[in-house]
Amino acid sequence: MYRTHNNGELRAKNINTEVTLSGWVQKIRDKGFMVWVDLRDRYGITQLIFDEERTPKKVMDKASKVGREFVIQVTGTVIERESKNPNMPTGDVEILVSEISVLNTSLTPPFTIEDKTDGGEDLRMKYRYLDIRRNPVRNNLVFRHKVTMAVRNYLSEKDFVEVETPYLIKSTPEGARDFVVPSRMNEGQFYALPQSPQTFKQLLMVGGMDKYFQIVKCFRDEDLRADRQPEFTQIDCEMAFVEQEDILNIFEGLTRHLLKKINNVEIGDFPRMTYDEAMQRYGNDKPDIRFGMEFGELNTVVQHKDFKVFNTAELVAGIAVPGGNSYSRKEIDKLIDWVKRPQVGALGMVYVRCNDDGSYKSSVDKFYDQDDLAKWAETTGAKAGDLICVLSGETNKTRSQLSALRMEMAERLELRKADEFAPLWVIDFPLLEWDEETERYHAMHHPFTSPKPGQMELLNTNPGAVKANAYDLVLNGNEIGGGSIRIHDKETQSKMFDYLGFTPEEAKAQFGFLMDAFQYGAPPHGGLAFGLDRLVAILGGQETIRDFIAFPKNNAGRDVMIDAPAAIDKEQLKELNLAITLKP
Amino acid sequence: MYRTHNNGELRAKNINTEVTLSGWVQKIRDKGFMVWVDLRDRYGITQLIFDEERTPKKVMDKASKVGREFVIQVTGTVIERESKNPNMPTGDVEILVSEISVLNTSLTPPFTIEDKTDGGEDLRMKYRYLDIRRNPVRNNLVFRHKVTMAVRNYLSEKDFVEVETPYLIKSTPEGARDFVVPSRMNEGQFYALPQSPQTFKQLLMVGGMDKYFQIVKCFRDEDLRADRQPEFTQIDCEMAFVEQEDILNIFEGLTRHLLKKINNVEIGDFPRMTYDEAMQRYGNDKPDIRFGMEFGELNTVVQHKDFKVFNTAELVAGIAVPGGNSYSRKEIDKLIDWVKRPQVGALGMVYVRCNDDGSYKSSVDKFYDQDDLAKWAETTGAKAGDLICVLSGETNKTRSQLSALRMEMAERLELRKADEFAPLWVIDFPLLEWDEETERYHAMHHPFTSPKPGQMELLNTNPGAVKANAYDLVLNGNEIGGGSIRIHDKETQSKMFDYLGFTPEEAKAQFGFLMDAFQYGAPPHGGLAFGLDRLVAILGGQETIRDFIAFPKNNAGRDVMIDAPAAIDKEQLKELNLAITLKP
Repeated sequence: MYRTHNNGELRAKNINTEVTLSGWVQKIRDKGFMVWVDLRDRYGITQLIFDEERTPKKVMDKASKVGREFVIQVTGTVIERESKNPNMPTGDVEILVSEISVLNTSLTPPFTIEDKTDGGEDLRMKYRYLDIRRNPVRNNLVFRHKVTMAVRNYLSEKDFVEVETPYLIKSTPEGARDFVVPSRMNEGQFYALPQSPQTFKQLLMVGGMDKYFQIVKCFRDEDLRADRQPEFTQIDCEMAFVEQEDILNIFEGLTRHLLKKINNVEIGDFPRMTYDEAMQRYGNDKPDIRFGMEFGELNTVVQHKDFKVFNTAELVAGIAVPGGNSYSRKEIDKLIDWVKRPQVGALGMVYVRCNDDGSYKSSVDKFYDQDDLAKWAETTGAKAGDLICVLSGETNKTRSQLSALRMEMAERLELRKADEFAPLWVIDFPLLEWDEETERYHAMHHPFTSPKPGQMELLNTNPGAVKANAYDLVLNGNEIGGGSIRIHDKETQSKMFDYLGFTPEEAKAQFGFLMDAFQYGAPPHGGLAFGLDRLVAILGGQETIRDFIAFPKNNAGRDVMIDAPAAIDKEQLKELNLAITLKP
Repeated sequence: MYRTHNNGELRAKNINTEVTLSGWVQKIRDKGFMVWVDLRDRYGITQLIFDEERTPKKVMDKASKVGREFVIQVTGTVIERESKNPNMPTGDVEILVSEISVLNTSLTPPFTIEDKTDGGEDLRMKYRYLDIRRNPVRNNLVFRHKVTMAVRNYLSEKDFVEVETPYLIKSTPEGARDFVVPSRMNEGQFYALPQSPQTFKQLLMVGGMDKYFQIVKCFRDEDLRADRQPEFTQIDCEMAFVEQEDILNIFEGLTRHLLKKINNVEIGDFPRMTYDEAMQRYGNDKPDIRFGMEFGELNTVVQHKDFKVFNTAELVAGIAVPGGNSYSRKEIDKLIDWVKRPQVGALGMVYVRCNDDGSYKSSVDKFYDQDDLAKWAETTGAKAGDLICVLSGETNKTRSQLSALRMEMAERLELRKADEFAPLWVIDFPLLEWDEETERYHAMHHPFTSPKPGQMELLNTNPGAVKANAYDLVLNGNEIGGGSIRIHDKETQSKMFDYLGFTPEEAKAQFGFLMDAFQYGAPPHGGLAFGLDRLVAILGGQETIRDFIAFPKNNAGRDVMIDAPAAIDKEQLKELNLAITLKP
């Protein structure tokens, strides 16, 4: 037997017990006549002591030869520790070692196995198995497990059934981003890896499963933005005989349960906001509502003077930055440079200092008097000591720029607190989204989303105005889930495919099975999917999903530890009837 | 709201309540003045009644127009049923309907949605979403969910952490069976889908996760034997600082827990048997021990007479078929034909009838007298009324043939009872297996399995005799799990790769990361994997894993419902820098 106890469990009550422990050498202090070793495993650290007066010489000699990250097994007696360490659960005791064996040696690790390591991201990824030995990384993985168990148990108790849908499916119209898998048995043909189990979960509803969920890997072969992964995990759900309200209630319940169970935070009913309102108040369909700085729309207030920039703007909107009047002129100039960066893209920024004496000082004093500026302050909710920042231009662009500024100011003011949780439902999303590149509308959510009742007709006259039965759950400014009530009759689904530019042949080839299924008594249904990686990161109070994935890939989609993807054998290619067309 | 109750929950206590129900029309009986409809959902069936005296005419008219599998919503009052049906949980009540709406129509389904359907396998697979509406299929999926929840909760309570390992990995030496996935971002390179997360779980042990599990899809692109799937699900586990005994105990505990919780069957300690013993007693490394018919080895008993067939045979072995003496001569001749079929491959069969009067009548009476035959009976454990069947020849072949005969007789005698469970550990597997095709030894389990202590040396002198720290869990004649204690030092692992025919370059290219990891303090570790599909099928008392998979593929690896795999766009191929080399 390798151990009688783990390294996190011995306490004062175990004193005088003989124990066997195994683990990694975290630290060695060798004073010659005495050696202390911190022995580590997943459960904690226990201090070992080797003492030339009480430890056999052979054992003493071996002990002085172990190095960091050696794997050792020791047997000894639990004794009271002379200088107790109240910061360690095992800090009351130490083990007086009588036997030691080295189970494995270790080279000096390429970075320190400490909570704060000296290893950079690249090195830690290459040696991810060593990185996982560090508490923060390992704790994140254990945390993720706790979240998934809580999700599974909650949904199971609510009669949801976890059903495994296939990974080897068929390429879909968003096919450009599908990973494909050549089949050996079916020559010249390919499976695709699912970007989501969407159609399968809908078929499960047609099949009467009633309530389905699955924690499932999904795949997307796209250029990776920062903090995206080619394989990612969803909590995927679908319910039959439900309206939007039913779905919001269930998954609000789940999220509330997680916040309570995992974070010990009680949240009341989640606020709801339409997409239009979110865009108007925050310039963003996933607003972080942990803090204010809501947009004030200033058009009626500003467009009566000679300031041409505002008069010709589709939207003039501002936010009141709390305490922002403390910014120096130089700092404000820097902020203006910041909004003009290509990533933000504003042409300039107008600002108003709200002085402590109630007066205002703006960058456009030439055009606006104190009464005007008082109205700006009123509209943006600015108080004495604040700084009003105003952007203007085309509506969507201005909103997006002002949203970026709002988030930046929140970061600087440390208003985005990791231990504060502000969930929000954003509802009534548009059905369609204009795509500049292809110059046509495409489905904002996906082609299975139903329009709001009676809005189907608008498709031909004002497509951009059609609202969908679609909703997102936003947590702390991140979209953590989204879903919709689906179309469940063949006719509407055909119309939708037609509208989205599928020929009947394409629709049949891609989704014939779904349309067939809709002919055999499909129930009304809807659902949603949570991004597990993101959800876990936010619950864990952190930003990067990579920190909650055991073996993540880098921005180029590579696993640098195993060095994948890689070339494959000619023989293998031949068996798959494939040739690589790249010039060497 | 689509429903106030589901179709399985109304009871006598609900009488006089107004309810709204939704579901599928299972059955309609239309007597003109009265219409009965069985309304079905996942939870059960509730009877609706439309009565011209009590139901509005408009509702009555609508009711008489609904057809099988229509999706309807009704509102009405729960009333006492006139002719109660004690076989239905809701059989005491029916719903007197006052409102009805048709939520969706249905074409006549291609097969009946009944427990016993008229649909053949192919049709049911094509319309799997309708097949899932049938209780047996849907119940199997719910059953599978219950099993996985029980597994997860059990292992979580034992400190196991479920960690998701990547699906996009690198092709391995068993690469011929890897599914590969071309990468768009990494031109000309491929990921592979995992045949198992083997190396990743070992790296998690190096990373100090201590106890890992995962319920995970695995992939193998091989010619599908009956009842195999190209994607299948494993309960994958690994533990650090363990010996074989620790692993057997934990997973014996898990299996016992499942049998108790899912099947309400109490099992004591699982018997253990070495591989050699299993082969000797049952001719099989996964013996079904729910019944006897153990092999009697007859060499010393038979090889002293003039029967040349036996005298020249490496092995002569027999089984006693209980009650087999009732077989007519014709039936025995048919049995002899059966063992001579190419699938079994015996050259013939000697038999001995054990008469009720204690006398024997054999097919080789010319060579053996009653005393001889009495010894045969003793060796095989035959009693009066039994039939002794004896095969002979090369040891391995004879065992395999006699094992086939034993299983066949068990089927005929109905000794393989679905509700009886006989687990068994088979231990001490050989490390290596001779491969006729490549004419060399390869790893029986996988190249990471450790040999028994002190047997490494045998590799050079008698490789076939080297035993491994490898074990299988057998349940009712099926291998449901297998695993091993792994090699955890670089030197042994290198030797093993070398022995298995990897050049150092190949070993480095394929497994460099694992060997690197072993240099940084890898702990002793081991684990196992259960085949979830098989386990669930056996616990569910059934034979075919396909019945427990929501969307299975057929023997050609095709999903006939979605028609995958399929050809992909030229554009897609081009983006992947691939060309198909098949002649059209």
